[in-house]
Amino acid sequence: MSHEIDLSKYEIRTDLAIESIEENENIEGIKSVVEKVGDIKITNVVVDKKGSSVINKKIGMYITIEFDDVTDKDNKEKVIEVFSFYFNRMLRELNLTDNKSCMIIGLGNSSSTPDALGPLVVEDIVVTKHLFELGCVGKGFRNVCAINPGVMGKTGIETSNMVKSIVESEKPDFLIVVDALASKSLDRVNKTIQMSDAGINPGSGIGNNRKEISKEVLGIPVIAIGVPTVVDAVTIVSDTINFMHKHYSYMKKNINNPVNRLIPLSSINYLKEKIEIEENDKTKLLGYIGSLNDKEIRALIYEVLSPIGYNMIVTPKEVDFVMKKLSEIISKGINKTLHESMNNT
Amino acid sequence: MSHEIDLSKYEIRTDLAIESIEENENIEGIKSVVEKVGDIKITNVVVDKKGSSVINKKIGMYITIEFDDVTDKDNKEKVIEVFSFYFNRMLRELNLTDNKSCMIIGLGNSSSTPDALGPLVVEDIVVTKHLFELGCVGKGFRNVCAINPGVMGKTGIETSNMVKSIVESEKPDFLIVVDALASKSLDRVNKTIQMSDAGINPGSGIGNNRKEISKEVLGIPVIAIGVPTVVDAVTIVSDTINFMHKHYSYMKKNINNPVNRLIPLSSINYLKEKIEIEENDKTKLLGYIGSLNDKEIRALIYEVLSPIGYNMIVTPKEVDFVMKKLSEIISKGINKTLHESMNNT
Amino acid sequence: MSHEIDLSKYEIRTDLAIESIEENENIEGIKSVVEKVGDIKITNVVVDKKGSSVINKKIGMYITIEFDDVTDKDNKEKVIEVFSFYFNRMLRELNLTDNKSCMIIGLGNSSSTPDALGPLVVEDIVVTKHLFELGCVGKGFRNVCAINPGVMGKTGIETSNMVKSIVESEKPDFLIVVDALASKSLDRVNKTIQMSDAGINPGSGIGNNRKEISKEVLGIPVIAIGVPTVVDAVTIVSDTINFMHKHYSYMKKNINNPVNRLIPLSSINYLKEKIEIEENDKTKLLGYIGSLNDKEIRALIYEVLSPIGYNMIVTPKEVDFVMKKLSEIISKGINKTLHESMNNT
Amino acid sequence: MSHEIDLSKYEIRTDLAIESIEENENIEGIKSVVEKVGDIKITNVVVDKKGSSVINKKIGMYITIEFDDVTDKDNKEKVIEVFSFYFNRMLRELNLTDNKSCMIIGLGNSSSTPDALGPLVVEDIVVTKHLFELGCVGKGFRNVCAINPGVMGKTGIETSNMVKSIVESEKPDFLIVVDALASKSLDRVNKTIQMSDAGINPGSGIGNNRKEISKEVLGIPVIAIGVPTVVDAVTIVSDTINFMHKHYSYMKKNINNPVNRLIPLSSINYLKEKIEIEENDKTKLLGYIGSLNDKEIRALIYEVLSPIGYNMIVTPKEVDFVMKKLSEIISKGINKTLHESMNNT
Repeated sequence: MSHEIDLSKYEIRTDLAIESIEENENIEGIKSVVEKVGDIKITNVVVDKKGSSVINKKIGMYITIEFDDVTDKDNKEKVIEVFSFYFNRMLRELNLTDNKSCMIIGLGNSSSTPDALGPLVVEDIVVTKHLFELGCVGKGFRNVCAINPGVMGKTGIETSNMVKSIVESEKPDFLIVVDALASKSLDRVNKTIQMSDAGINPGSGIGNNRKEISKEVLGIPVIAIGVPTVVDAVTIVSDTINFMHKHYSYMKKNINNPVNRLIPLSSINYLKEKIEIEENDKTKLLGYIGSLNDKEIRALIYEVLSPIGYNMIVTPKEVDFVMKKLSEIISKGINKTLHESMNNT
Repeated sequence: MSHEIDLSKYEIRTDLAIESIEENENIEGIKSVVEKVGDIKITNVVVDKKGSSVINKKIGMYITIEFDDVTDKDNKEKVIEVFSFYFNRMLRELNLTDNKSCMIIGLGNSSSTPDALGPLVVEDIVVTKHLFELGCVGKGFRNVCAINPGVMGKTGIETSNMVKSIVESEKPDFLIVVDALASKSLDRVNKTIQMSDAGINPGSGIGNNRKEISKEVLGIPVIAIGVPTVVDAVTIVSDTINFMHKHYSYMKKNINNPVNRLIPLSSINYLKEKIEIEENDKTKLLGYIGSLNDKEIRALIYEVLSPIGYNMIVTPKEVDFVMKKLSEIISKGINKTLHESMNNT
Repeated sequence: MSHEIDLSKYEIRTDLAIESIEENENIEGIKSVVEKVGDIKITNVVVDKKGSSVINKKIGMYITIEFDDVTDKDNKEKVIEVFSFYFNRMLRELNLTDNKSCMIIGLGNSSSTPDALGPLVVEDIVVTKHLFELGCVGKGFRNVCAINPGVMGKTGIETSNMVKSIVESEKPDFLIVVDALASKSLDRVNKTIQMSDAGINPGSGIGNNRKEISKEVLGIPVIAIGVPTVVDAVTIVSDTINFMHKHYSYMKKNINNPVNRLIPLSSINYLKEKIEIEENDKTKLLGYIGSLNDKEIRALIYEVLSPIGYNMIVTPKEVDFVMKKLSEIISKGINKTLHESMNNT
Repeated sequence: MSHEIDLSKYEIRTDLAIESIEENENIEGIKSVVEKVGDIKITNVVVDKKGSSVINKKIGMYITIEFDDVTDKDNKEKVIEVFSFYFNRMLRELNLTDNKSCMIIGLGNSSSTPDALGPLVVEDIVVTKHLFELGCVGKGFRNVCAINPGVMGKTGIETSNMVKSIVESEKPDFLIVVDALASKSLDRVNKTIQMSDAGINPGSGIGNNRKEISKEVLGIPVIAIGVPTVVDAVTIVSDTINFMHKHYSYMKKNINNPVNRLIPLSSINYLKEKIEIEENDKTKLLGYIGSLNDKEIRALIYEVLSPIGYNMIVTPKEVDFVMKKLSEIISKGINKTLHESMNNT
């Protein structure tokens, strides 16, 4: 049946560079450095021209911050700290000093909770451009403006066009674009922030290709900040099949080891570890499916679910609470970094 | 004391042409025709160059629709009908035929209930521009797009500039601008819709002068649709003083007329009628204040309330419910008029 | 490995009677009749004492209405009609004539979109109890009151206790309880309304067992109305595995049939049909997993996903729009049925 | 005309004890002590049986906190501190020690911004009752539950009845009731918090008399916390007439004093001071109106505005922002005071 699967048909939905590289170690043209701050994991990926063609991601820096629970207040504060630190570093590397003016764009639909990250962040940005024009801004503030352009289904206007015309008239020195993304991994949903200088395709993650918002198009640096807030059913199923392989291999090796009987099952995090799985085990557990590689499995699931309309794109049921916390993290992080005088609040 | 009152200090807050003309009958350069549809009163005012300089309103057509209760469903439907009829007539007079594309701008702050009329209306506009560009629009639909530019305090950007740059890039044939207004009459608040081809000054009614959005500035026809949603304390007090005059005169004349004793007080609408008040009565009732004309009274009240921060701008406490109904009337009226195929829904 | 799977550990999450019976045909003590109105499918299930113990559902009537798209206006109206018809029939069967007073309870958390169905419905219920007490209600209206008790996490109070004390003081003749449910089938999410006279366990579907709201507890008839708005990852995966079996069997049989090559894949709805799958095919396709039955597969997936926190409960990303439409259907349907005079609006 | 004015017709709308006593100094049965914390003024009023009959306020303690701007962050924090201090003192005086359980009731309509104070406060209360029942509460937390019963127009149920039945079943040791109030003074709107142990009449301030929620009715202490968020037109007009008297007297005395010509008008706060006004001045300025006392003026204005529907109840146009800040102050203040362990957050 393998020959029937057309891999090109199912393009994997991901906006995260980290997901594009994770299965391919040592790709030429891609540098990846992982750092840790407490429980928070930061992955710095630099994609050059060569790497760009391999993983189909644009040339640029991609910083991914992975964390666990942001409903906990202390943890939230830590994530804000880490976000500010790396965001500040990116500004410095792009030479966007305090005197450079900034426009922030909140992409997405404010009426749709899982898509409202951009509008929610913009709501809490400290804007100063109008005060700069009146000449009444205190020290330690940058020239900042912010807009929510809305979504094409509600405005009738191509979002990137609207952004382009406002950029041309307001002439900011650089752009920050905030958007909700799609993930191809169940465990990154609402637990990852990516920032990148490679621009963004509004709605690309969720299958509506809009025109690009990037330095090439606009002529000024564009920093894209995104959080994966949705996954599709294909991802959930293929991730689970993967976990089942690991579970099976792990159980097989350890089942007769009496030590394991003393460990509560829930404390075993083997599913997050790299586990060598014998090809033989895979087919034993999952037959023909077990003989396919990840891309083939995804393509097959897509082929099964798509025609009957079941490749639903879903979001965790706690979406309302999580969006609030995530938008707070990003807006506070942006305010702190852009406005020096807000660094201590 | 009269000599101390500087009338220029207190510019009367009104966005309604009807309020600019109501005390001055037969002004040269202003034509005014009143029509009635059931309980609904429509005033058509045309201001030419001469009239414009007299009443400080821009040259153009001003249609004012006055109605009572829009929480009643039947009444609401009637107001939608009347609105559509006059809006359609204005489009025809401006030669804005079905093939002319339209952009709708919702001015105001979506987070502030009395200022959210524009954003609420835009939320329910049927947009089609993106479908026209794909070539997939059925018959009976006009090319329509719609945006909420936000307010300067939240974007940092001069709203009229933002509108100008989007108009230049999207090139609509005409503009509709929807905004909440200020009234200088207590009884018009939330009970009046004004439409005009004379453009608009965002926030002018509530004391924040922004740059104009008009044909002169943008080069295309601009139809402004507004509802007064707020009044200031000065208006409430001066209206009441006026009512007291009328009340006093009426009572004096009728108090000994035994017929009146049979009429319940609440059914007497003499306060809405024109009543000749003797100058003598005025000073008897209100002393020095009674000797002042309307403008002088307003200026005096302003002089008293303003320095102590009590010239509050207020809105009726039912504002949330009323904004819903009013935005529904305007969005339905616009949709029906712009899209021929929606005329029967 | 089969012996390791503890089926009792993973109790299947479903609030729908229809899902409890669908794999077991001809269960003693359960009568099931299917009707069709256009595209809308209505399943009437009656569970008696015997049936109750088999499927672990309480004794009572369960009417399930399945439909497709409620974003389409015509379709929405049809669903309202069907809902009213069957709801009215249930009232008559329970002898809840127009003179019987009704209290409506909206369960769920108004701040969490997928859980807000109950609060949204209550928001639009036409209440009359206070008018009855004043003696000023027109003909054709029933005595109706409605409350949103909130959720325990926000009130600190056991919801069923709060309902019980209000019922005891207000003494309605019967109760209607509206709640968001969990489904164990991907394709029922947001596309099914269940009504039943068997009462409800608030939050039971999503794993938080609260005390029951039922005739047994309250002493008056309780009609529960629910819509499944969430599924867990286990359901998504096990449904997909099932679909894969069907897909495989169907393809094997038809792959060499040249006729099929002319049919676009998307028009084939074989996955919704009952397809006989050979046991042999199952293991060929899915190895060991293929040899398990549905319950065992679910239990295994649960065992894999649960310890690592990946058995997420999810909702389709369009949840905001769908909740609006569904609550409109149910509130209109309830208003029409309870108040005779609203039948023609 | 004076003899025509029926004072009883126009009952002054105020929920604030401070407003009932302010014009009557040294009333027997009323003790009033004023304290200052920076710009914040705190008035402690104790009404005994004798005083109660004079000012038509129930026996009890009334603490009123008056402040200026709560949009300023520092100022907001100070008001929270002061609120907590006096709230804590009231708890101690009522002997409501940490082991006493508390139920918080948010009165008002969550869909109407100026009436949403109660629901907004309850939204942010830290509830613990359900955790106490599970035996899993850390040290420093009190047993607290909280509900929003809704308004009669939306539930059909008399609010006080609903509260009574929940109190009887949940058996808290005392009640806190939070509500939006009406003021009879323009300058107290949104700038005053009153707390009292005298209970509350839901909606009494805005003219809808509901049944009382008080210790007499419920058998447990009831602390009412309220903020005036609305005023009626009568208040605005009569306050302004008062200001005009003061303005006139002040100007007359000072107009020829050259020193005053150097003081900017806006810095003169004479309108807030007690100014002796000669009776003669009053009638000179305001004729017959000037000869009336405050109550008579109010009654007259009411007689004029009421029949034509112009005694509108209004709220400042910034109501959305102010409600957010005020509810934050009260919820934080309550949380800090009830839960000892939250005192340092």
